[in-house]
Amino acid sequence: MTSSANQGTLAPDNDPSVFNLKHYLATQQAQVEAALDRSITIVYPETIYESMRYSLMAGGKRLRPILCLATCELMGGTVDMAMPTACALEMIHTMSLIHDDLPAMDNDDYRRGKLTNHKVYGEDIAILAGDGLLTYAFEIIADQTHNVPADRVLRVIARLGRAVGAAGLVGGQVVDLESEGNPDVTLETLNFIHRHKTGALLEAAVVSGALLAGAADLDLQRLTRYAQNIGLAFQIVDDVLDITATQEQLGKTAGKDLQAQKATYPSFWGIDESKRQAEHLIAEAKAELETYGTAAQPLKAIADFITARNH
Amino acid sequence: MTSSANQGTLAPDNDPSVFNLKHYLATQQAQVEAALDRSITIVYPETIYESMRYSLMAGGKRLRPILCLATCELMGGTVDMAMPTACALEMIHTMSLIHDDLPAMDNDDYRRGKLTNHKVYGEDIAILAGDGLLTYAFEIIADQTHNVPADRVLRVIARLGRAVGAAGLVGGQVVDLESEGNPDVTLETLNFIHRHKTGALLEAAVVSGALLAGAADLDLQRLTRYAQNIGLAFQIVDDVLDITATQEQLGKTAGKDLQAQKATYPSFWGIDESKRQAEHLIAEAKAELETYGTAAQPLKAIADFITARNH
Repeated sequence: MTSSANQGTLAPDNDPSVFNLKHYLATQQAQVEAALDRSITIVYPETIYESMRYSLMAGGKRLRPILCLATCELMGGTVDMAMPTACALEMIHTMSLIHDDLPAMDNDDYRRGKLTNHKVYGEDIAILAGDGLLTYAFEIIADQTHNVPADRVLRVIARLGRAVGAAGLVGGQVVDLESEGNPDVTLETLNFIHRHKTGALLEAAVVSGALLAGAADLDLQRLTRYAQNIGLAFQIVDDVLDITATQEQLGKTAGKDLQAQKATYPSFWGIDESKRQAEHLIAEAKAELETYGTAAQPLKAIADFITARNH
Repeated sequence: MTSSANQGTLAPDNDPSVFNLKHYLATQQAQVEAALDRSITIVYPETIYESMRYSLMAGGKRLRPILCLATCELMGGTVDMAMPTACALEMIHTMSLIHDDLPAMDNDDYRRGKLTNHKVYGEDIAILAGDGLLTYAFEIIADQTHNVPADRVLRVIARLGRAVGAAGLVGGQVVDLESEGNPDVTLETLNFIHRHKTGALLEAAVVSGALLAGAADLDLQRLTRYAQNIGLAFQIVDDVLDITATQEQLGKTAGKDLQAQKATYPSFWGIDESKRQAEHLIAEAKAELETYGTAAQPLKAIADFITARNH
């Protein structure tokens, strides 16, 4: 699934004309990890903080925080301005994974190669850890965003709320649950699920970074289209990987979708056409960024990374 | 459990020298109900909105919203300034009830005389309805608070976040769960549970109303002490009512605490001393408000109402 556009990211460190995505991601990821690590300290009652940290610090690509930081920088802002929001995005993403994995939902035992939160801490604590992370996401943005006008911060909170609630992630999850085992799920419904369940938060990651930097409406529109395209591509690739990757590569149970008779993009299009659609979406996403020249290299490279990843 | 101070609230409408709490509460409650009703409309996917509305519109005293509105007015603000935050407080309270009632937590079938959310919509939707309400609480404050400086609104969001997360409501619930069935729970632990599980949100209700109106630090401190005292009194009265009230009066299973061998204030102090402690706390709460004269009549009457209620 390696696209030709992605070859450059494998270039050696010593060629300054080529943007080195591997190096960029490693640097940004390290900053995000450090900020997340600082964000939650363990105090009484220890169980809840340990449970929140267990899932929050379990690795992952930190794609949403990195997108937020990259977009903020592209629009003239700084990493510091966006870091609390970047951490909040990962807290919300982690909350959604903890609650999705519960027995009453997807009933998963493994996530990122580790036991799921409720398998370690019990269902009651896992529910509360999700609630705690979701709450802390909004608190950390309101409390720790500095050098950004307060009205911009409020717009970010409102935008993020919409992306997570019933009009976003939560609504997507509901339709996903209702569609399970239904052989007549339409492509329209599948698109609704993914635009909301995964797309909305990726879009909010990109848009919130731009809002913090004070981006103009025209830029917000371009970046929104970029985000929507990579969001859908990301989900298509996820569906393909569920079929083609091994459990070891995924760090979670492979083949779950087939087993659960879930509608996926490959079930509509087959694997090859799904890959082509994902690559087309990535090309469209990158086209939105042409106007920004080399400053948009990180966001372009992240788009390529989505189709190139194998887990 | 009727205190003499409460007699005045039963005065006829036509005596202007006596503050009529019954009339006041009915008026404020009607405003809050209308705002809550407007806050969530049912769109696709209907299930999640119906589930959120089912619990949010299930009645209740609306004590937290009314406290927020009353404090905002006492500090020179308006009802309009505080209404989004008032609705958010009720959404958060409702979220905590939905998640508390889940089988993995307290496993309750009835709440406010109706089937609990998960008994009607299933555990998966109930978990998501709680997530949706919690998210929407922060969104509605950020998006719909008008005529208040943005930095004040951010302070309210941060304050509310602290009250709800691991340092507040969620942390209190964790200690409550950990203490269940433990015969050696200390009074200190019981105080921790209630200061966090119920006290923190009541305190945030009062403080957020004051913050929105731009209250000075000295006023915030006084109102915080008022809120802490009525919060603890509220819980003591709850514990007493669990023993003395009927299921019909409570609208939920009575005697649950005894059955679950939960530590309660009556289990430390007995019923009569518990009532005396509650009345003492209410007197202290009202003493904090002396400086505001008749403008504080609503908050004083609400304090009395807490010890006088029978459900």
